[in-house]
Amino acid sequence: MNARCFTFAGGDTGPWRITSTVPVVGAGLPVAARLSIANSDMAQPPAGALWVMRGVASNERYVTVKERASLVAVQPQLGRPEASCAALIPMSKSARWWALTQEERREILEEKSAHIATGLKFLPAIARKLHHGRDLGEPFDFITWFEYAPTHAQAFEDLVGLLRETEEWQYVERELDIRLVRDISE
Amino acid sequence: MNARCFTFAGGDTGPWRITSTVPVVGAGLPVAARLSIANSDMAQPPAGALWVMRGVASNERYVTVKERASLVAVQPQLGRPEASCAALIPMSKSARWWALTQEERREILEEKSAHIATGLKFLPAIARKLHHGRDLGEPFDFITWFEYAPTHAQAFEDLVGLLRETEEWQYVERELDIRLVRDISE
Repeated sequence: MNARCFTFAGGDTGPWRITSTVPVVGAGLPVAARLSIANSDMAQPPAGALWVMRGVASNERYVTVKERASLVAVQPQLGRPEASCAALIPMSKSARWWALTQEERREILEEKSAHIATGLKFLPAIARKLHHGRDLGEPFDFITWFEYAPTHAQAFEDLVGLLRETEEWQYVERELDIRLVRDISE
Repeated sequence: MNARCFTFAGGDTGPWRITSTVPVVGAGLPVAARLSIANSDMAQPPAGALWVMRGVASNERYVTVKERASLVAVQPQLGRPEASCAALIPMSKSARWWALTQEERREILEEKSAHIATGLKFLPAIARKLHHGRDLGEPFDFITWFEYAPTHAQAFEDLVGLLRETEEWQYVERELDIRLVRDISE
C-alpha cells in the first residue's frame, strides 16, 4: 500500500472530460473521453480504461529554502471551484538527464531554465501538483497536474510555451499534453 | 515491471547466511536464516520468507560532480570473490528530514556529517549499493547493501560507527543492521 501514490486513468469514467490529447514529443496515447484520479496504486483500474499512469507525491528535489517560501506564500490548493480547466502533462527525460548529478540538474533546471521562477510568475492563477513515476518503473518519469480557471487559459499556454523553450526541455524525450474540463462535481 | 527494483527476502533460501539481525533504532524484524536478492519486485517472494523489503537503484541525489569523480575512481563492483562478508542496513528517516529542502538535506548529510567523504575513506575495501524504498511505499526509506572481505570487518565497524555519530543520524527513526556471510556461490 503506497499512501502517496496517485493513479490517473483515461477511459469513460471520472469527473474530468478530456478535450484534447496531444503528443508533444515521442509516442502518443489512445484518446480517452474522461479521466479519473485516485490516491492509490489502483491495482484494478476502472473497466474501460484505455491507459493508466501512476506517480508518487514525493519530497522536494530542487527548490531552495527561499524559493519554497515564495511558492508556499502564493500557491493555491487543488480543487478550487472556479478552476474548472486542467492539464495533465506526463513526460520522461533522457538517460543523459538522469546520469547528471543533482547540482548539474539544478543548474539546468533553474539557473539556466528558470523553471521554478517561471512557475512562480503564474501563481496563484495556476495550481500545480507533481508526481514522480520513474522509481516506480512507470513509463513516465513525471506526471504534472495543473488546475486553473477558464479566464487563465491563455496564461497556462504562456507557461507551457515558456517552459518548452528552455534548455531543460532539451532533455525531454517524451511528453503528452492532455487538456480537460470538469463537468461533474466529485 | 520495474527494471531497477531489487527485492531482499529473509527466509530459509539464498546464497547469503544471516549471522546477526540487530535492531539499531526502532522496531526489529523476525530473525531469518538466509537472504535471497532478486533484481525484480518479486511479487511472489520465496516460500518461507519471514520478511521482504524492496528498493530501487535510482539516480544520484547528493554527490557533487567532483565527489562522484572521486568515488567512481575507486569504488569496487559488487560480487568480488574475496568479499564474502556483507551487511544489509535498512533504515527510515523522520518526517522532519523529508520536509527539508534538498539544500538543507545536503548541508546536513555532507557539510555537517561528511557522509560521502567518510564512505570514500573506506574505498575500495567496502563496496556499497543504495536502494530507495520510500517512493515505493515500502517500510524502509533506504536499503544499503555492503560487501567486504573478512580482513576488512573492523573497517566496516569503523565506518558504521562513524556514520551513526553524525548529525544526519539524528534523523534516523528506524534502522536494522543485518550481517551475512556468503557460503553458497550464485
